Amino acid sequence: MINIKKPTAIIHKTRIKRNIEQIALKVKRSGIKFRPHFKTHQSKEIGEFFKEYDVSAITVSSLDMAIYFAREGWEDITLAVPCNIKQINEINILAKKISLGLLVDSLETTRFLAKNITSIVNVWIKIDIEYHRTGVSFQDRTKVFDIANLIVKNKNLNFSGLLTHAGNSYYAKSRDELIQIHNESIKRLIELKVYLSNESIKNIQISIGDTPTCSIIEDFDGIDEIRPGSFVFYDLMHVKLGVCNENDIALAVACPVISKNLDRNEVVIYGGAIHLSKDYIQLDEHTKTYGRVAFPSKDHWSKSQPKSFVKGLSQEHGIIKMDKNIIGNINIGDILFILPVHSCLTANLYTDLYSLIGEKYTTFQY
Amino acid sequence: MINIKKPTAIIHKTRIKRNIEQIALKVKRSGIKFRPHFKTHQSKEIGEFFKEYDVSAITVSSLDMAIYFAREGWEDITLAVPCNIKQINEINILAKKISLGLLVDSLETTRFLAKNITSIVNVWIKIDIEYHRTGVSFQDRTKVFDIANLIVKNKNLNFSGLLTHAGNSYYAKSRDELIQIHNESIKRLIELKVYLSNESIKNIQISIGDTPTCSIIEDFDGIDEIRPGSFVFYDLMHVKLGVCNENDIALAVACPVISKNLDRNEVVIYGGAIHLSKDYIQLDEHTKTYGRVAFPSKDHWSKSQPKSFVKGLSQEHGIIKMDKNIIGNINIGDILFILPVHSCLTANLYTDLYSLIGEKYTTFQY
Repeated sequence: MINIKKPTAIIHKTRIKRNIEQIALKVKRSGIKFRPHFKTHQSKEIGEFFKEYDVSAITVSSLDMAIYFAREGWEDITLAVPCNIKQINEINILAKKISLGLLVDSLETTRFLAKNITSIVNVWIKIDIEYHRTGVSFQDRTKVFDIANLIVKNKNLNFSGLLTHAGNSYYAKSRDELIQIHNESIKRLIELKVYLSNESIKNIQISIGDTPTCSIIEDFDGIDEIRPGSFVFYDLMHVKLGVCNENDIALAVACPVISKNLDRNEVVIYGGAIHLSKDYIQLDEHTKTYGRVAFPSKDHWSKSQPKSFVKGLSQEHGIIKMDKNIIGNINIGDILFILPVHSCLTANLYTDLYSLIGEKYTTFQY
Repeated sequence: MINIKKPTAIIHKTRIKRNIEQIALKVKRSGIKFRPHFKTHQSKEIGEFFKEYDVSAITVSSLDMAIYFAREGWEDITLAVPCNIKQINEINILAKKISLGLLVDSLETTRFLAKNITSIVNVWIKIDIEYHRTGVSFQDRTKVFDIANLIVKNKNLNFSGLLTHAGNSYYAKSRDELIQIHNESIKRLIELKVYLSNESIKNIQISIGDTPTCSIIEDFDGIDEIRPGSFVFYDLMHVKLGVCNENDIALAVACPVISKNLDRNEVVIYGGAIHLSKDYIQLDEHTKTYGRVAFPSKDHWSKSQPKSFVKGLSQEHGIIKMDKNIIGNINIGDILFILPVHSCLTANLYTDLYSLIGEKYTTFQY
């Protein structure tokens, strides 16, 4: 086992592969395309794991990340954020080399692309079903049609179809609500597709993408591709939602204990906001948690300890409330494993992730 | 002006120097030592600014950061987090080269150091006045004495004194409360110093360190050194506390607009949690803000726009609620400047900070 001296992001390879396999097999059964989002792991070596399941198309969240993975041999990449027109030169350079997918949700950006793009790119219209972050509202059919029409008229813009991200699935209160959100999304996208087809727009694919729905849905009827990402590591947010179990979580941050306070049943780890990120789960009205606490074990780390959680984070310190029956066994210098609330933001804080036997997984750097 | 194409951390050099000067002159008048915390900027070039004010001693928050600044010629560095005994080898190597200060808050760590340290280090006892993160309680005089006694008996451990961080100052509801927190801290530290002196412990310095109190206190009576850090950039948290004005903020993240929604009076920037960090200010019961919005201007950026704020962050997207009278003037591709809620965590997300004329300020990488 590697000698952990400071906050270190540890991955659990068996679980990662199991998490990938679970979705990959489901996708295969449905006969659709698996275009996993690589924004969670951001690692070329973890990217390789997907090739065992015939994945050849991926999703990323920035142009720099697309360039990083293109360099690693990925030739079909969708940049699933509305196109940033300020990076048009870099887009044109990358689009010469690979099959690059872009998102638009406005006539302005589509017109800009039509005028300035110099290689063929795939263009998806981002549709807002319910999440209200970006995208053209599914109800604004005229706008969707106008954008699609602009795309199909331009020889360098290859119309790919309708793409959505049901980020609102993260607010679902139950599995049933999750399924309902998914069914409603698909119904609306298919209606929009029928409308566009009737207006003579052809070759309309449907792409969806969040981990919660992709984890629990078995039937991908009507969909052409899925783009989940965070399932690779999962995290406490997904456990809370009921879309995975704690023993599916494949990323933890190993941190040394640097201080103890028996009066408050607290230990302090070297491991703070810059090692874990500040996303939290509200435990009750007054209590947030930034992570759960596990001990080193044969299988990487133990189950999380009951009544023990990261209650506060400053830049480099993490304050852990410990079960009073456990704290006596903890010494300064011990290593605790912290299960993250939001694995994407946690993994993003590291240049390298490690396995416990010391394999290094390098990640894309912004 | 540099061509900003993607989220870019922009510093305001004039304000940084003014912020440094303000504290440096006050410290000079008080005849105490200024040991600024470099965890906020983490940059060798910004570190150089301090040398204009005869600063030769600094504070850092990790051993790696100490090594980084030691490499840049800093020879007197306090690592202001309870000593991480797992890094004893690296501590011994660094302590051979520079005057290294360490913190202890337990007999365990002090005993470990006494046994394993091979060069002379300065040792501070971390005292907990009220913040309840780390430190020996100021009321636990016996424990403080026992630790001090262990230190003074060891020839490699040079007892420096009592050190505290009044992080609770960030919860103060008014300037008066801030001053009260400070006065109470100093009173308690001095009482503890007197107690230890009576027990024949000698050469007891007092070191304090938070930006809010160091910004507003004029009288540093009884104190030997101060270690504030975030004053170098300040941020919205400090404006809210009333310890600086918005035009003291010296760091902003410039982000391109990628999407607009006039129905919701929202624009979306390429600039998310991995560019701003997720610390927030609660505006009202249901509304958080992750940043204020300013336009490019002759003086770097404008005043922040009223009724406009970053209302949500996902990994790479920032959702901005805009004043409905302003949103009409904003186009996709425009650059907005986001004033950060917590500048330490924001700056930490970048490998380089930039001035608007393109000067690059490299930062320490974890």
